[in-house]
Amino acid sequence: MCEANVYIDEHDGKGEVLYLENVDVIRPEDGKLFIKNLFGEQKFFDGQIKEISLIKHKIVLTRK
Amino acid sequence: MCEANVYIDEHDGKGEVLYLENVDVIRPEDGKLFIKNLFGEQKFFDGQIKEISLIKHKIVLTRK
Repeated sequence: MCEANVYIDEHDGKGEVLYLENVDVIRPEDGKLFIKNLFGEQKFFDGQIKEISLIKHKIVLTRK
Repeated sequence: MCEANVYIDEHDGKGEVLYLENVDVIRPEDGKLFIKNLFGEQKFFDGQIKEISLIKHKIVLTRK
């Protein structure tokens, strides 16, 4: 499958922290990022995309 | 492979126009989106991400 895992770059020495696995959809919505995974789990994240690396199945976000 | 095709939503009746195929990496850089595909082709796009749908292998951008 071609989903990705979403991480938050916390900028506090913790590095990249796993936020949601098996993500299918991300889109800006109402000033936040709407994120949905293969299992229908949905989250809104108050931040932005830092980097997408599809071959690594990895998307990194940063907080606003 | 888990790359995606990147489209531009042109908002002018043309709908979504293919911009770059087999994209691996996207990241904001110097106020634009840096986009690189599997073959090393690189582009800078002056816009933002509208929607990522990984299962559809599709990323849609909009112009600023």
